[in-house]
Amino acid sequence: MPKSKHVQESLTTMTEMVLPNDTNTLNNLMGGRLLHWMDICAAIAAQKHSSRIVVTASVDNVSFAEAIHLGDIVTIEAKVTRAFNSSMEVSIKVSAQNISAGGELLKTHAAFFTFVAVDQSGRPIEVAPVIVETAEEQELYQSALRRRQLRLVLAGRLKPADATELKNFLNQ
Amino acid sequence: MPKSKHVQESLTTMTEMVLPNDTNTLNNLMGGRLLHWMDICAAIAAQKHSSRIVVTASVDNVSFAEAIHLGDIVTIEAKVTRAFNSSMEVSIKVSAQNISAGGELLKTHAAFFTFVAVDQSGRPIEVAPVIVETAEEQELYQSALRRRQLRLVLAGRLKPADATELKNFLNQ
Amino acid sequence: MPKSKHVQESLTTMTEMVLPNDTNTLNNLMGGRLLHWMDICAAIAAQKHSSRIVVTASVDNVSFAEAIHLGDIVTIEAKVTRAFNSSMEVSIKVSAQNISAGGELLKTHAAFFTFVAVDQSGRPIEVAPVIVETAEEQELYQSALRRRQLRLVLAGRLKPADATELKNFLNQ
Amino acid sequence: MPKSKHVQESLTTMTEMVLPNDTNTLNNLMGGRLLHWMDICAAIAAQKHSSRIVVTASVDNVSFAEAIHLGDIVTIEAKVTRAFNSSMEVSIKVSAQNISAGGELLKTHAAFFTFVAVDQSGRPIEVAPVIVETAEEQELYQSALRRRQLRLVLAGRLKPADATELKNFLNQ
Amino acid sequence: MPKSKHVQESLTTMTEMVLPNDTNTLNNLMGGRLLHWMDICAAIAAQKHSSRIVVTASVDNVSFAEAIHLGDIVTIEAKVTRAFNSSMEVSIKVSAQNISAGGELLKTHAAFFTFVAVDQSGRPIEVAPVIVETAEEQELYQSALRRRQLRLVLAGRLKPADATELKNFLNQ
Amino acid sequence: MPKSKHVQESLTTMTEMVLPNDTNTLNNLMGGRLLHWMDICAAIAAQKHSSRIVVTASVDNVSFAEAIHLGDIVTIEAKVTRAFNSSMEVSIKVSAQNISAGGELLKTHAAFFTFVAVDQSGRPIEVAPVIVETAEEQELYQSALRRRQLRLVLAGRLKPADATELKNFLNQ
Repeated sequence: MPKSKHVQESLTTMTEMVLPNDTNTLNNLMGGRLLHWMDICAAIAAQKHSSRIVVTASVDNVSFAEAIHLGDIVTIEAKVTRAFNSSMEVSIKVSAQNISAGGELLKTHAAFFTFVAVDQSGRPIEVAPVIVETAEEQELYQSALRRRQLRLVLAGRLKPADATELKNFLNQ
Repeated sequence: MPKSKHVQESLTTMTEMVLPNDTNTLNNLMGGRLLHWMDICAAIAAQKHSSRIVVTASVDNVSFAEAIHLGDIVTIEAKVTRAFNSSMEVSIKVSAQNISAGGELLKTHAAFFTFVAVDQSGRPIEVAPVIVETAEEQELYQSALRRRQLRLVLAGRLKPADATELKNFLNQ
Repeated sequence: MPKSKHVQESLTTMTEMVLPNDTNTLNNLMGGRLLHWMDICAAIAAQKHSSRIVVTASVDNVSFAEAIHLGDIVTIEAKVTRAFNSSMEVSIKVSAQNISAGGELLKTHAAFFTFVAVDQSGRPIEVAPVIVETAEEQELYQSALRRRQLRLVLAGRLKPADATELKNFLNQ
Repeated sequence: MPKSKHVQESLTTMTEMVLPNDTNTLNNLMGGRLLHWMDICAAIAAQKHSSRIVVTASVDNVSFAEAIHLGDIVTIEAKVTRAFNSSMEVSIKVSAQNISAGGELLKTHAAFFTFVAVDQSGRPIEVAPVIVETAEEQELYQSALRRRQLRLVLAGRLKPADATELKNFLNQ
Repeated sequence: MPKSKHVQESLTTMTEMVLPNDTNTLNNLMGGRLLHWMDICAAIAAQKHSSRIVVTASVDNVSFAEAIHLGDIVTIEAKVTRAFNSSMEVSIKVSAQNISAGGELLKTHAAFFTFVAVDQSGRPIEVAPVIVETAEEQELYQSALRRRQLRLVLAGRLKPADATELKNFLNQ
Repeated sequence: MPKSKHVQESLTTMTEMVLPNDTNTLNNLMGGRLLHWMDICAAIAAQKHSSRIVVTASVDNVSFAEAIHLGDIVTIEAKVTRAFNSSMEVSIKVSAQNISAGGELLKTHAAFFTFVAVDQSGRPIEVAPVIVETAEEQELYQSALRRRQLRLVLAGRLKPADATELKNFLNQ
């Protein structure tokens, strides 16, 4: 099994400027463009953790709360929260700011993507466990199991009855 | 309230060819690029239903089951399943085929995005109800409520205890 | 010789949203961008008919009647009308609509592209004949010969005197 | 009426390198991408002649004789051949060369696009006549009338019986 | 005069994956593509420092020492080193790594860009001074004057005889 | 040693139209986009001179004097000024014009890039000497040595004391 790695070793920061072709007719960033950036940033974090080629396995529910505008600077931070055999969950935080107008930092939203590490033939391959250090890393590590159960239930690969963590959460 | 519309009136088909810049180092389509295409196709379906500018409100859990390759033809079909005040749920089906090698049609996966119709100032505006005709349209219309509850719970805007439809589904 | 195919088997629908980079300083879609989309859509139709790699052989005279605007939804439909040995004629119909302003469907124009099916070394290879069903398909099949003669005359590969179908048409 | 201009004043040269995303699975330049470049180059030539915003009015039959490959350098030359009220015919010559392999210059093909000069509201506006100098410019100027008749006949805006120049050419 | 800011407040990190269209026929990142990324990253750093729209004023000599390959992850870090009235010098560090092959971090090179802060009409506007903290920040702040003299000499806006700092450096 | 070539044999002209995605929020061309175009144009000139694959070795100080606007036509001319073993210096001239508004030709600026010719394995390979004809070509050939010394000093590969040409220039 590969050597464990700290969460911080996979931390990846991307900065993008919202250009005209990224926007709709209201001059707001289109959701699909943001998802595209989030996927690239998260894939790089998963590559850093696994030192492998990675493929996107799933995207958790993403909710777009605030409009991001033409010219805004978008900062995306991704880090691996937990590994399960050949798959890794990546936590993504997106913030946006209208810098040239002295705008406040706008915390827009969080999301989780999962990736599978593969070898040169595209076959899944085991990845290193994650070492958590901070309280936030610990919390994300713990809750990763519940999110994984929800993914498996939604993909029809786990019976709701067996999703213990998920049910505890919903019934709390 | 705007005049009701049939599901078929919002049906939108997009066809894309997977080009080199859409692929990773295994020559497979990157997940983020596919999400970008799905968002555009679904947004057009929501525009057709509402005759309004629309903004992406959320993306449900998407699971990427099969690898799509360089040169494959990707077909994306989107249609509105149900409207809730100013928001619409859009069902998306993606298939891929290696046509020039006489390849089989590969049914890759399904997903749900939601959009909000807005006026020129970006304020939410009511949309027409959906008229269902086929059994499949009826099934998607019914289950839309459960998916909506899951979205609201995940966004922290509905207490799990109040997500009746969702709990029935998970406890079945 | 490959097995005949119905016209409908090659039908391909593409939907595109006109983005800022697709437009000129009047915010109208540039002709070259539309030609690019038409070529991709028609190439996919020719791939579906031939199950082969295809290369663009020629573009017939295209006339741009109506301006298409920023934010409009462009729908392109392509289908193979007739096969001649290794080449196929593809009929393309383009329509545009300003959906979010409740705009009328605007039928913009029709065009014909031809493609040659090739093997992995790029050598022309025979394609299946086309089976026509509707009256419109029959008409397109018949007139394909005249358009082919015009192409050959314009390319200097057929003497005007031998372009019988074309001359009948021009002298009518 | 605007002041006449020499053909050479509108001469425009574009040079492009064929990149991966411009090619099909045989690593050959896709026809639609070349049409896109030709349209931009020809539009700039028409802008230089008219000092106006221009919109593509039509594309004459284009025949793609030779394959252009990944990494090739494509040179496109465009110049206005003749003006008709608010419209201009532009002659386009495309050549390609595999420079880094010491390749021969490959004369690929010629084409004609027409453009209409418009004012800020998009209304057609008269353009300057063309002054021809060389024998080649004279020949292109003369034959422009025949090509114009063919365009009008194909667009259903001129009866074949009235296309005198065109008929003389076809019956020669 | 605007309030002074620490160097760290302008720190901007960009991460990019080298895609096929970014590479030449040896599958190496093209220099111009890297310059494009460096300019965007540095412009964002200058925006963060000045809270203004910024325009690129000059690029210092950049030397490309090591080839960066297709699939490599490129990390670009930019921070403002010193302000001169309305202009800012930005230091840029680029590193590249072939992560999925477990590659070493490759320190590729450093560069300096300068930007001018402008108001909505594009007129230069004064920016805040820079507060340095670390020894490296102090060294960059000091040497900024010498680099500025070289820029002015090369642009013909300063006589070599008056470039005191620069001459001391060259004659040392 | 390869056969000498005239400067004119490497002359390369590129014409680009400034599109929305190339501009900042003031609708001015971003510096990085222009650097990207300059690199491609200069690389093609170096390819024409050497008949080899070339890689960017360095970019000399570039100063951006005048703003170029959305819709402007940018013309870039590049030619090899002198060869040093496997490297070539390329002179680049950029001009911009707002053609559709009848705008004056705006001479924006000049720059120098250097390239190294490489074989299929990426190893440097000797290139042909340059034959100069005009007075301007002669002047560029002579001053190339001074610019080369500045590059080497800035890259830390030549001691300032040994940069004779450069010191003469600065001390004049």
